[in-house]
Amino acid sequence: MKKYTEIQDIPNIQDAIKEAILLKMDPFEYKELGKNKTLVMLFFNASLRTRLSTEKAAKNLGMDVMSLNVNEAWQLEFDDGTIMDANTSEHVKEAAQVISQYADVIAVRAFPSLKDKAKDQSEYILKSFEKYATVPIINMESATAHPLQALADAITITELTEKKVPKVVLSWAPHPKALPQAVANSFATMMQEMDVEFVITHPEGYELDPEITKNVPIVYDQKEAMRNADFVYVKNWSNFKEYGQVLNTNPSWMMTQEKLGNAKFMHCLPVRRNVVVEDAVLDSEQSVVIKQANNRTFAAQVVLKNILESL
Amino acid sequence: MKKYTEIQDIPNIQDAIKEAILLKMDPFEYKELGKNKTLVMLFFNASLRTRLSTEKAAKNLGMDVMSLNVNEAWQLEFDDGTIMDANTSEHVKEAAQVISQYADVIAVRAFPSLKDKAKDQSEYILKSFEKYATVPIINMESATAHPLQALADAITITELTEKKVPKVVLSWAPHPKALPQAVANSFATMMQEMDVEFVITHPEGYELDPEITKNVPIVYDQKEAMRNADFVYVKNWSNFKEYGQVLNTNPSWMMTQEKLGNAKFMHCLPVRRNVVVEDAVLDSEQSVVIKQANNRTFAAQVVLKNILESL
Amino acid sequence: MKKYTEIQDIPNIQDAIKEAILLKMDPFEYKELGKNKTLVMLFFNASLRTRLSTEKAAKNLGMDVMSLNVNEAWQLEFDDGTIMDANTSEHVKEAAQVISQYADVIAVRAFPSLKDKAKDQSEYILKSFEKYATVPIINMESATAHPLQALADAITITELTEKKVPKVVLSWAPHPKALPQAVANSFATMMQEMDVEFVITHPEGYELDPEITKNVPIVYDQKEAMRNADFVYVKNWSNFKEYGQVLNTNPSWMMTQEKLGNAKFMHCLPVRRNVVVEDAVLDSEQSVVIKQANNRTFAAQVVLKNILESL
Repeated sequence: MKKYTEIQDIPNIQDAIKEAILLKMDPFEYKELGKNKTLVMLFFNASLRTRLSTEKAAKNLGMDVMSLNVNEAWQLEFDDGTIMDANTSEHVKEAAQVISQYADVIAVRAFPSLKDKAKDQSEYILKSFEKYATVPIINMESATAHPLQALADAITITELTEKKVPKVVLSWAPHPKALPQAVANSFATMMQEMDVEFVITHPEGYELDPEITKNVPIVYDQKEAMRNADFVYVKNWSNFKEYGQVLNTNPSWMMTQEKLGNAKFMHCLPVRRNVVVEDAVLDSEQSVVIKQANNRTFAAQVVLKNILESL
Repeated sequence: MKKYTEIQDIPNIQDAIKEAILLKMDPFEYKELGKNKTLVMLFFNASLRTRLSTEKAAKNLGMDVMSLNVNEAWQLEFDDGTIMDANTSEHVKEAAQVISQYADVIAVRAFPSLKDKAKDQSEYILKSFEKYATVPIINMESATAHPLQALADAITITELTEKKVPKVVLSWAPHPKALPQAVANSFATMMQEMDVEFVITHPEGYELDPEITKNVPIVYDQKEAMRNADFVYVKNWSNFKEYGQVLNTNPSWMMTQEKLGNAKFMHCLPVRRNVVVEDAVLDSEQSVVIKQANNRTFAAQVVLKNILESL
Repeated sequence: MKKYTEIQDIPNIQDAIKEAILLKMDPFEYKELGKNKTLVMLFFNASLRTRLSTEKAAKNLGMDVMSLNVNEAWQLEFDDGTIMDANTSEHVKEAAQVISQYADVIAVRAFPSLKDKAKDQSEYILKSFEKYATVPIINMESATAHPLQALADAITITELTEKKVPKVVLSWAPHPKALPQAVANSFATMMQEMDVEFVITHPEGYELDPEITKNVPIVYDQKEAMRNADFVYVKNWSNFKEYGQVLNTNPSWMMTQEKLGNAKFMHCLPVRRNVVVEDAVLDSEQSVVIKQANNRTFAAQVVLKNILESL
């Protein structure tokens, strides 16, 4: 693997999942691999799981880790040709090249604005680092994608499925604030790569980017969509067409124990209890969100391992 | 030791003190003990000594350390059954379980509000982490207690006493802002476990929690309380009865060289010069505050060592 | 080296440059030297290159690194004899002594106010740490000096010069905000120690501290100053006489490809494109700013190595 900015960077997803499961059994086996190698993690936004699990993964491999909250450095300019006489004091051209000299791998978290669709869809922050950095880039959640989360999700489904071809449902949930589509996008992309029956359910008008969902069945009736589901992945996203709007907060879309049936409940976390999902689900044995979060470490570790091996 | 959220978690305080003094003589002796073990430090509040000394202690034992300022992650919910449609975006139930998977030990700093007495006294933040985490918890100062500080204080008195049973006085001091009772509480608890003559002095009405001070003599006349003292621990705390109020800023309670006599001066730091204590005291040989701060490392190290040995 | 707060702390600059170039060829050669040694980095201000390169340098030497943003701790008092009943809650006397016990080396970044000239010139923050700390201090840019940058600059010129005595020009540039004189000061000091022909050019009235520039030729005509230059170091600084004022933003002082001729372009970064220098310069082969930034690691590493060897 030369980088991990999108799921497509994984040459063989089944192999990556198997390798992650092996790493989980012996996390420190490759502790020599990262010796004298440094991961720099750049945060434009808040993080808990991603920050801790990615750092843990790197240290499991013997790497050094340096973290930078970008707001503790300089406000970055991303446009070309700008006369930088206003708020930005450093161009990403310089920043990315400079940081590459202190790092063997750079990981970047940069959420979308949810205001300017074209700009968000352009992935200008992530792509700028890809363009100007001279070391591999890892996406720790960008404007439109969260591939480390999707890999952890795939590992979790592989570990827990009792069927050869489980039914997996991505179910939209209400939320008071505008959230990115990134997690849903990457989960939908990943499921299309897996040997699963995959269905998406959400209120009409809440369609994700059709270039991502492609031919995945979209069922507006949540109950129908979830029939005989083995895994239900619940996630809010703000409207994609009416970009970034919160047009629906209908609590009937909240996941409940009754609706869930015998399926396993998945969520990337953080999750708002009794808004996105009721307590009874999260507190039941059917919830696998904690295991999912644990797999964040091994998703990051398999990615880092493969990148280190390619250096 | 299975955790260190309160002084009572130490099975034998004299043994812990002796062990800390041995660690101080050879801080890196147990560098193999923490190999491949990770301490996650969670800060809800500001920290200087605690952050640096606890991290140093962990690294002396060969541990990896990951720090998270909670305000750089998600605002946590602590109540059960809440419909989380307002400011909090992650429940401590999830957060504590998730972080436990990236950590072998979790250390938490969470100050009181000093506004809601019942809530502060419930120690809901610390207790929530204790309840939901699946790894040992260390208290880096909670609403009502600062047991790492108290252990450092006990080490300091043990190292410096010239008597078998020294007289130790805890003396309240004025301060412009409302401060927690935590340090005073833990010091008072610790002194009752030590072979010392212990007296508390403060203005009338500034009584600490009687469940903590128990039968310790309380003398409202500072001069009388300090007669023949060997160690005087000076500390402000806001009113406990009129909870969190600053009812007294009488400068006559400030510690002076004259009042101190031949006693050694102790304080947990940070200290406001010429408000809590005059320069002449802090700049004299009788001040042991720097030595106290140094012992923070070895207090944390003996706690971490014992927890690591119990894993 | 016992400390590195100013360029004069380097006993022999040519030797230090040579040693840095050797370290760059084999960065991990002295990985045993820093074993069980800790660098504490204290930031009063924003940082990108300095934070990452200094941490990288320390880790290349096998040191542990602990970083503290001072605003996440306590507001420090620097004056003697103050009654600390206002905003400051800890005196640097205590802070510096305490941190010294958790550190083998302390590095400090503390920018000037650019409002109170006498106070800034007194270097009260850096000097207070020097005075009260009991371990060596490294200056990561203070009110008036940035000696790590100047050492990186000297390494860069040494590596890239094609002449025995190159001509080096320090050229002022416009900038919308008031910036410190620190980088210009340290560069000017360093150039006087090197075997170069050194000229400074800036608008009239923008003279740096004459105690720093001494007998260096100052030429107000930028074109004349730059004639036959081999290296042009471009940098804004706010007015020194009319202290901290931005009296000139004349864009004709911006560096252009045309003015640069065949010289190499240097800047400490971050740089405002098309304000300080036009894109064409930064994007050309003549720009050596990325190499300069890389040398920050080896400047810090040679300083740390020499300090560690003196412990």
